[in-house]
Amino acid sequence: MTEVVVGIDVGGTNTKFGFVDKVGHCYREESILTNAQEPPELFASRVAEAIKGEFTSLRSTHSMIGIGIGAPNANYYRGTVESPPNLSWKGVVDVVGLFKKHIPLPVVITNDANAAALGEGMFGAARGMKDYIVITLGTGVGSGLIANGQLIYGSDGFAGELGHTIVDVNGRWCGCGRRGCLEQYASAGGICRTVFELLAVRREDSELRSISFDELTSIMITEAALRGDVIAREAFEVTGRILGLKLAEAVAHTSPEAIVLFGGLAHAGDLIFEPTHRYMEQYMLNIFRNKVKLVPSGLAEGNTAVLGAAALIWHELTRRG
Amino acid sequence: MTEVVVGIDVGGTNTKFGFVDKVGHCYREESILTNAQEPPELFASRVAEAIKGEFTSLRSTHSMIGIGIGAPNANYYRGTVESPPNLSWKGVVDVVGLFKKHIPLPVVITNDANAAALGEGMFGAARGMKDYIVITLGTGVGSGLIANGQLIYGSDGFAGELGHTIVDVNGRWCGCGRRGCLEQYASAGGICRTVFELLAVRREDSELRSISFDELTSIMITEAALRGDVIAREAFEVTGRILGLKLAEAVAHTSPEAIVLFGGLAHAGDLIFEPTHRYMEQYMLNIFRNKVKLVPSGLAEGNTAVLGAAALIWHELTRRG
Repeated sequence: MTEVVVGIDVGGTNTKFGFVDKVGHCYREESILTNAQEPPELFASRVAEAIKGEFTSLRSTHSMIGIGIGAPNANYYRGTVESPPNLSWKGVVDVVGLFKKHIPLPVVITNDANAAALGEGMFGAARGMKDYIVITLGTGVGSGLIANGQLIYGSDGFAGELGHTIVDVNGRWCGCGRRGCLEQYASAGGICRTVFELLAVRREDSELRSISFDELTSIMITEAALRGDVIAREAFEVTGRILGLKLAEAVAHTSPEAIVLFGGLAHAGDLIFEPTHRYMEQYMLNIFRNKVKLVPSGLAEGNTAVLGAAALIWHELTRRG
Repeated sequence: MTEVVVGIDVGGTNTKFGFVDKVGHCYREESILTNAQEPPELFASRVAEAIKGEFTSLRSTHSMIGIGIGAPNANYYRGTVESPPNLSWKGVVDVVGLFKKHIPLPVVITNDANAAALGEGMFGAARGMKDYIVITLGTGVGSGLIANGQLIYGSDGFAGELGHTIVDVNGRWCGCGRRGCLEQYASAGGICRTVFELLAVRREDSELRSISFDELTSIMITEAALRGDVIAREAFEVTGRILGLKLAEAVAHTSPEAIVLFGGLAHAGDLIFEPTHRYMEQYMLNIFRNKVKLVPSGLAEGNTAVLGAAALIWHELTRRG
């Protein structure tokens, strides 16, 4: 019998799950609608039924030994999801408790970025490392910090909010109510804002001058930059300078062996990696220079989150012995 | 027989040591000259002889089970001190190896701020906490980060350099060769620089206008502030704003239960704690607000460093079982 865990990725629209063995092989990945407006009890029971259904064909050869869940605003210590921005669940929902009712196995939950960090360490770009940081550059900027081989949850389970470190106290307004958070600069939406600032300040021609704020996407900026558009290239330079500075500061905190970047903006490849790495080195304290690797995710695109959630529960089962 | 460890604090001028039991009682604290211009071999042999001499009177009732050393630029993983700024030792010195030659016991070394962090956790203000940060506001700004009950050494042993996170990339020149490091704002020398900036910009009378840059000390600023001097009070406000911002960012990394401040500038008490706490809350992400304690050191002034070094080896002996 091969032992597998269930990795569940709770998203605003879809919830994906898959059965993952200890070397990161993913069996029967499935996706069902989250139906975020439903009560969470119903959600848990639907997902649990789907898991049991899918597991039928594996039952003779595999044993299911635990469940890991990655979800927005999840709290590892309490097993809860708290006022998630993309789900209409109210207040504090005991997600771990709800799942255990249906499937009596060890269940652990954490936020998506933390799950991704454990996934990179177990199956991806940070395999074998004891000290590293994973940053997601997507709609938001999330992060997971690993030190001494352990995820840093902090005193309240909310550690690793690098997207809300401050670039400029008088900077761009953030959804969190403060100003100048890294998330407003180094996310997919952040680089769009940077383009609009540059269009306002600079005089160069740019194909981006014909696109409205509502229409502009980070993919358009990447494509324009690849065609040599000056404003688009400068937007990556600015983004790399800001992200590089904040990564240098993160290095001063935990001195990681590597920083793994993934999510939408990381797909721009060298356009974002090159300036980010250059500025990170420039702004880094001398004792850390030329040591910290800046690398893309080593997890297969598409099931990153499921592998991350699976790594979370594998990590937990290993720790508990 | 009561078990004790030796805590050694290597300073530029004096080296202190003491025998410390598991509850932080310190027996026979002694100080000898470091004689920094001597070769490190001679230094280790002199300190070892002094330890053996002092231990004679304890030998019948106490057993010595390990040695912890706090020293500038010490590397925990390698057991070395590397090009220390205040000692004339050249290159990489195997301090752990040198001590073991004279006293065949477990020996561990780390930098002073890390040792202090362990000391606060074992004997001081962070007793019983698993996630906290200790910041020293002295000649420099040092720090030690504890997460999951463990000191974060990072991949290379140099983690926790919060004094070299950047306040302003175009800011004050730092000894590290870069600009705008926190150390140039939140140290004893940093607040003096802030006073000189304020004297240049503001028009208010101040008793500090009669003091030269070379003469000014942070103690003079504290005394002036207590007498109501406007410039001196504003200097604490500015320092608190900058330190509070960087502490809010540190919280976003590791989400500590408490931050312990100690060293010269922390002696200013409320003058520095009040604005630092106020700005830390202001700049902190909402999920962390009203949770993080900002507290002074709980270690007896004077033997903080010896207790820290002792905590280091106690921590290590406990970990090794």
